[in-house]
Amino acid sequence: MNAKQTIEQFRIKRLPNYVVQDDEDVVFRVAFESKIPLILKGPTGCGKTRFVEFMAHRLGLPLVTVSCHEDLTAADLVGRFLFKEDETVWQDGPLTLAVRHGGICYLDEIVEARKDTTVIIHSLTDDRRILFIDKTGEVVRAHRNFMMVLSYNPGYQSIVKDLKQSTKQRFASINFTHPPVDIEAKIIQTESGLGQDDSRTLAEMGSKIRQLKGFGLDEGVSSRLLVYVGRLVKGGLSPMQATRHAISQTLTDEAEVLDSIQNIARLYFGDLMDDASGEAEAKPS
Amino acid sequence: MNAKQTIEQFRIKRLPNYVVQDDEDVVFRVAFESKIPLILKGPTGCGKTRFVEFMAHRLGLPLVTVSCHEDLTAADLVGRFLFKEDETVWQDGPLTLAVRHGGICYLDEIVEARKDTTVIIHSLTDDRRILFIDKTGEVVRAHRNFMMVLSYNPGYQSIVKDLKQSTKQRFASINFTHPPVDIEAKIIQTESGLGQDDSRTLAEMGSKIRQLKGFGLDEGVSSRLLVYVGRLVKGGLSPMQATRHAISQTLTDEAEVLDSIQNIARLYFGDLMDDASGEAEAKPS
Amino acid sequence: MNAKQTIEQFRIKRLPNYVVQDDEDVVFRVAFESKIPLILKGPTGCGKTRFVEFMAHRLGLPLVTVSCHEDLTAADLVGRFLFKEDETVWQDGPLTLAVRHGGICYLDEIVEARKDTTVIIHSLTDDRRILFIDKTGEVVRAHRNFMMVLSYNPGYQSIVKDLKQSTKQRFASINFTHPPVDIEAKIIQTESGLGQDDSRTLAEMGSKIRQLKGFGLDEGVSSRLLVYVGRLVKGGLSPMQATRHAISQTLTDEAEVLDSIQNIARLYFGDLMDDASGEAEAKPS
Amino acid sequence: MNAKQTIEQFRIKRLPNYVVQDDEDVVFRVAFESKIPLILKGPTGCGKTRFVEFMAHRLGLPLVTVSCHEDLTAADLVGRFLFKEDETVWQDGPLTLAVRHGGICYLDEIVEARKDTTVIIHSLTDDRRILFIDKTGEVVRAHRNFMMVLSYNPGYQSIVKDLKQSTKQRFASINFTHPPVDIEAKIIQTESGLGQDDSRTLAEMGSKIRQLKGFGLDEGVSSRLLVYVGRLVKGGLSPMQATRHAISQTLTDEAEVLDSIQNIARLYFGDLMDDASGEAEAKPS
Amino acid sequence: MNAKQTIEQFRIKRLPNYVVQDDEDVVFRVAFESKIPLILKGPTGCGKTRFVEFMAHRLGLPLVTVSCHEDLTAADLVGRFLFKEDETVWQDGPLTLAVRHGGICYLDEIVEARKDTTVIIHSLTDDRRILFIDKTGEVVRAHRNFMMVLSYNPGYQSIVKDLKQSTKQRFASINFTHPPVDIEAKIIQTESGLGQDDSRTLAEMGSKIRQLKGFGLDEGVSSRLLVYVGRLVKGGLSPMQATRHAISQTLTDEAEVLDSIQNIARLYFGDLMDDASGEAEAKPS
Amino acid sequence: MNAKQTIEQFRIKRLPNYVVQDDEDVVFRVAFESKIPLILKGPTGCGKTRFVEFMAHRLGLPLVTVSCHEDLTAADLVGRFLFKEDETVWQDGPLTLAVRHGGICYLDEIVEARKDTTVIIHSLTDDRRILFIDKTGEVVRAHRNFMMVLSYNPGYQSIVKDLKQSTKQRFASINFTHPPVDIEAKIIQTESGLGQDDSRTLAEMGSKIRQLKGFGLDEGVSSRLLVYVGRLVKGGLSPMQATRHAISQTLTDEAEVLDSIQNIARLYFGDLMDDASGEAEAKPS
Repeated sequence: MNAKQTIEQFRIKRLPNYVVQDDEDVVFRVAFESKIPLILKGPTGCGKTRFVEFMAHRLGLPLVTVSCHEDLTAADLVGRFLFKEDETVWQDGPLTLAVRHGGICYLDEIVEARKDTTVIIHSLTDDRRILFIDKTGEVVRAHRNFMMVLSYNPGYQSIVKDLKQSTKQRFASINFTHPPVDIEAKIIQTESGLGQDDSRTLAEMGSKIRQLKGFGLDEGVSSRLLVYVGRLVKGGLSPMQATRHAISQTLTDEAEVLDSIQNIARLYFGDLMDDASGEAEAKPS
Repeated sequence: MNAKQTIEQFRIKRLPNYVVQDDEDVVFRVAFESKIPLILKGPTGCGKTRFVEFMAHRLGLPLVTVSCHEDLTAADLVGRFLFKEDETVWQDGPLTLAVRHGGICYLDEIVEARKDTTVIIHSLTDDRRILFIDKTGEVVRAHRNFMMVLSYNPGYQSIVKDLKQSTKQRFASINFTHPPVDIEAKIIQTESGLGQDDSRTLAEMGSKIRQLKGFGLDEGVSSRLLVYVGRLVKGGLSPMQATRHAISQTLTDEAEVLDSIQNIARLYFGDLMDDASGEAEAKPS
Repeated sequence: MNAKQTIEQFRIKRLPNYVVQDDEDVVFRVAFESKIPLILKGPTGCGKTRFVEFMAHRLGLPLVTVSCHEDLTAADLVGRFLFKEDETVWQDGPLTLAVRHGGICYLDEIVEARKDTTVIIHSLTDDRRILFIDKTGEVVRAHRNFMMVLSYNPGYQSIVKDLKQSTKQRFASINFTHPPVDIEAKIIQTESGLGQDDSRTLAEMGSKIRQLKGFGLDEGVSSRLLVYVGRLVKGGLSPMQATRHAISQTLTDEAEVLDSIQNIARLYFGDLMDDASGEAEAKPS
Repeated sequence: MNAKQTIEQFRIKRLPNYVVQDDEDVVFRVAFESKIPLILKGPTGCGKTRFVEFMAHRLGLPLVTVSCHEDLTAADLVGRFLFKEDETVWQDGPLTLAVRHGGICYLDEIVEARKDTTVIIHSLTDDRRILFIDKTGEVVRAHRNFMMVLSYNPGYQSIVKDLKQSTKQRFASINFTHPPVDIEAKIIQTESGLGQDDSRTLAEMGSKIRQLKGFGLDEGVSSRLLVYVGRLVKGGLSPMQATRHAISQTLTDEAEVLDSIQNIARLYFGDLMDDASGEAEAKPS
Repeated sequence: MNAKQTIEQFRIKRLPNYVVQDDEDVVFRVAFESKIPLILKGPTGCGKTRFVEFMAHRLGLPLVTVSCHEDLTAADLVGRFLFKEDETVWQDGPLTLAVRHGGICYLDEIVEARKDTTVIIHSLTDDRRILFIDKTGEVVRAHRNFMMVLSYNPGYQSIVKDLKQSTKQRFASINFTHPPVDIEAKIIQTESGLGQDDSRTLAEMGSKIRQLKGFGLDEGVSSRLLVYVGRLVKGGLSPMQATRHAISQTLTDEAEVLDSIQNIARLYFGDLMDDASGEAEAKPS
Repeated sequence: MNAKQTIEQFRIKRLPNYVVQDDEDVVFRVAFESKIPLILKGPTGCGKTRFVEFMAHRLGLPLVTVSCHEDLTAADLVGRFLFKEDETVWQDGPLTLAVRHGGICYLDEIVEARKDTTVIIHSLTDDRRILFIDKTGEVVRAHRNFMMVLSYNPGYQSIVKDLKQSTKQRFASINFTHPPVDIEAKIIQTESGLGQDDSRTLAEMGSKIRQLKGFGLDEGVSSRLLVYVGRLVKGGLSPMQATRHAISQTLTDEAEVLDSIQNIARLYFGDLMDDASGEAEAKPS
């Protein structure tokens, strides 16, 4: 597979299901046109990844996503030599692919990365817009459609893991929060196939559960888990059962917190149940 | 051996001996059909691994199991290049095998893994369901039968080793506990060949020993060790002897705790013994 | 690509937009002529990198920049062997390129580098001016146009990360601060295309925001972020909107500090807004 | 050398000199027949290694011993690729040898091993009895004669180094202590060639020295060191001299403890000496 | 390039500019003739490196210098295999070069090295005078002109970084301090081309600045920085300007200490200035 | 060079200059004949290495010495594969050389070694006397002339670095101290060529300096440094000068301790000096 074929794999085929909440689409577009790199900030599962897919599709750009972690090396981003037929062949990494052929390079959860990963993007995020590949001696000038986007969860931000000032001061930023109830209801409906009313009830329940944050929950429930509840109900489980497996047992190992979540679920779906215990569950064959 | 042959090695040949306790089989099936990845939570030896083998057989899926540890690298999961006849040949790792050809990839004790291992599954556990192999530049779209399952022991959960929120919030969960006495008796009988009554006595003894948890035992005795007692008795050892070797000396190095376990054994098997000391043991030739 | 071609890639094509503030250009030129290596000291985004590009262009020298980080090895600077057609071929690293062919080797944020990186420059920064490449056994005598320049942010200086005395005492130094308002206004105007008045207002706002340093901000805002504001405004965003995304949300995650910055923006750009809330923002299509 | 030849090297040629003390031989045989893996627990030099050699000989099994340490990798156990004649050839490691061809794999001092070493044996120590070699994609089903045995010194057991519960609960266990005087006397006689009476005196002295444990000695003296004393006496040294070199100077660097041991030696061998100082020593030419 | 050619590169072409201060040249010569390895002790920039170059030239020996750091491996010193034309070729490292062909091996700042580096010189610094290259199986007996010299800055000496006793006790030592004013004046004059009087004034200023050690300065100013001042003045800068860039801004980031140094400079060069502020500086075109 | 040639390089050509002090030569010989491995214990420079060379010569055995350090790997001892002419060739390491061809393997300062180094010798230091080379699958049975000897400095012994009990209890031991004055005088005379009287005076001075241990000196002066003093005097330095460079400046960086040593030197060599200051020193041309 050649490099051109490789980058083509990263095109977003269908418009992702994303509902614009504020001015984030405008800011992204202007930043892209003004060659300003971006940081997307917000909690887990609030839609940052979906948003960048949405914008990539709208701007017609390939989207190369890299989930950062503490063992990610610069070589993982830039590329490396492979041996083929008695010779070494250079293989562009995901970052170099986007730099060379144009596209968004999206480094997800950048604060998890090692320092060499964050530093390698410096020359790409000021007016130089170049990438020096020391292993080949090549200086790659960024394609005019190249754009660097990082994501970042301020809830995790610690002194140890925070971005360096010299990195931060190369980016504009867009802040994200969990979507409001009506938008989240729409998301649940579209992604789980659940009816409109049930989707709204689920969204309201999610909003209520998020108020437990700080009282036993480190983070609120993500839209994704609410969609899971919807799908499990669609698959035949009772709402209580689905909430228990997709939310309560996922988010906590403490009995009290688990009960608090289940009690919230009972508030919203109690009228769907027949028995007194509130825990009778459909058992599909 | 080609990749197809490789994955075929992972089919479960015979239905494993597993007794359903609650709604876990239904939740697993619906999750599989709804493309929701799962976390199985519970203490050591409570049957999580057996359950996933059971479901893999029932759903007709290959099961690729990886025991996680702190030195497991992303390459161990995804694959690596090998040199063959003067050329490099790509070798799919266990994760890629399941992603490409369909099947359950079961990461046992996920919290033991390094961060790069847990992060690599992110793109496979949201709606993208893709795996980017940076070393080859290939984007593998997951087979429709691919399913990701993790296991997780909350008793070990520490701040250092807990899963990241951004990982957690991609999974639904099923909680497990040790099986009730009657089910465990059936397991012991089937796996050790011991008679029905002795198996039940063993199961009851196991249940009693589990009450020592927190009083000298970090975890209760697993079903597996109870099966070992059964097999050793079957092989000619006395129940006291078998319990001492398969349970007491395995679970503790402290004399008091060892005595406590042996005393429980004496409660259940004291009538099988002839002498007063309670420690006379059959000595098969 | 041969080594000569490689070094040519590092020539600065156009005179960078840099305004001399003090005697820094004279000191740099005399140091270059007297074969004295230099350290450029100052906060993030105050123009050190731009200045070295400016001098490289003026002196007609290639400029090889390396962003230092804790995983940068000596081999990354000096070079390594590659396999090509059944043989190993030596590949000069960025430092060796500059040493051999003449040019400025600029190690950005040197205190981030590992000790082997800083030590390798010792023989190049005293009267020996040689580089011993142990892997090839070659002693490279520095080209007469070779010059070593380091950058260094004293704000980050810690006991752990400070330069060794034996490294420090090989360099002369130039201290940098943020540019004064009139110079910064000129920079903003040139780089964002904004009008003269708006550029000056932005520069004044930047100067005001820098007074927040120590009151919630670790470092003042860089000229680069002010240029970003200019470009976003040029692209259709309101000044408040642009400031929020390019400065406030980038520099802080705390609501109070974010408000403080936005309040400063309102002081300078309040008369541009129509409504009372002070947050109405243009929404370009 | 092919794999078959390799495993044959591990057969125990002669029956090792081991005296059964309790039911350990029966437990080992039944465990082998019931496919139950074993942990041998006990202090340094109490005969665990000798016992496993003894059983290997009796059961006619090859014995592959690996001394564990913190740098032992999974590859050291499983195997690795070697380059031969322009191709990579797979080389089974010691564990794989035993798994594939049958035999005991004995991991000595397992708690010293890294976690990846202990985890790799999980699939071999439950009812799966398989080893997945990720580098070749091969699933090796264990030979019916494969048996896993670990050794473990509870005296070293610390929270950091203890076995994981999920490892422990896969094994039955046999506890060992130092042999009683009459058995140890026999061991010394056989292995050093010393007379029966002197051997018994040495064994008694050893038993006395073991009472110093906790009073300056971390562990009691091993049978091996007592055998050394016997051999040195046989070679012409006086018993006091031999005890000093083989026991006192080996076990302690503190003068008081050294004197305590020498005083015990004097109690047992004082009548062999001619002079008052109690330290006159034969000086063989 | 063959090994012989390689070592020839390390000859000192011209007699370095070094002024003997005490008996150091005699001690060095006798140590060389008596095959006694040497440690040169003293602060940064006091002339240790220059002295060893001076002696190398006088004794007609090649000088192989290695700047030690914590990532320097034994292989960096001894050598390694390289692949060339389908075969591995051994490449002597800098230490082996000197051992084999004769010459001084000078390990600069030895306490910065890893332990394997310091241990590898043991067999070369007792009467064995051999180097065992384990990778080739070769025992290299040291050339009669081989001499080992280390440098060492006692000011940095810490418990963690101190030399092991077993290393120390293989060396004789020579202590160094900063040169007296008249010698340092001569050094400045020769190396900067400044006049005799100005050079002496600079030397006196340097001596004064060294009294600030402990009052804000970790180490006194080195002769090298004084030479830099001389060269910058020669290049057209004012003495105040030159001192600021070559000494004050190099040695400190604290305004008070910087002022103290500048005040000392004013004491010595105040009569050269025309205006009251004492900071008017020549601005050469 | 083949393996046989390699081991021959390790023969001690001439009888080393060693004076037996106690029964150490007898113990060593009997231990060798009884196949008992040995630990030599004692302070730096007390003659352990010289003694083992002496015994190797006397017993006619090659002596392979390895200086241990924390980066020494098992592969450094056992051997590794090298590529030669398109094939991998196994290269025995120093330990394997001695095991295979017979000879003493002397691991100097064993407590500095990594754990995998100490564990690899276990199977060689009990009655198995085998070495398993996992990389080749070969089991090497030790040559009848193979002997393992370790050295060990109890002064350095710490909890972190102490030998494991399971290693210790495989060895007999010989304790060493600094030689008495008459023996040390003989050593100095032989090795430096100094006259008998001066050598004795030096030995007495050394004995006096050793009393400073604990009063500023971590370890007493080694015989080697006293020999150095002798050689420097022989080369034309005054005794005070020679003591200062070979002992005082080597052993301490503190002025008081340095003066204490010089004062002791003055006590012994004061009558050799002409002037009052006691520091006039011969200055050979």
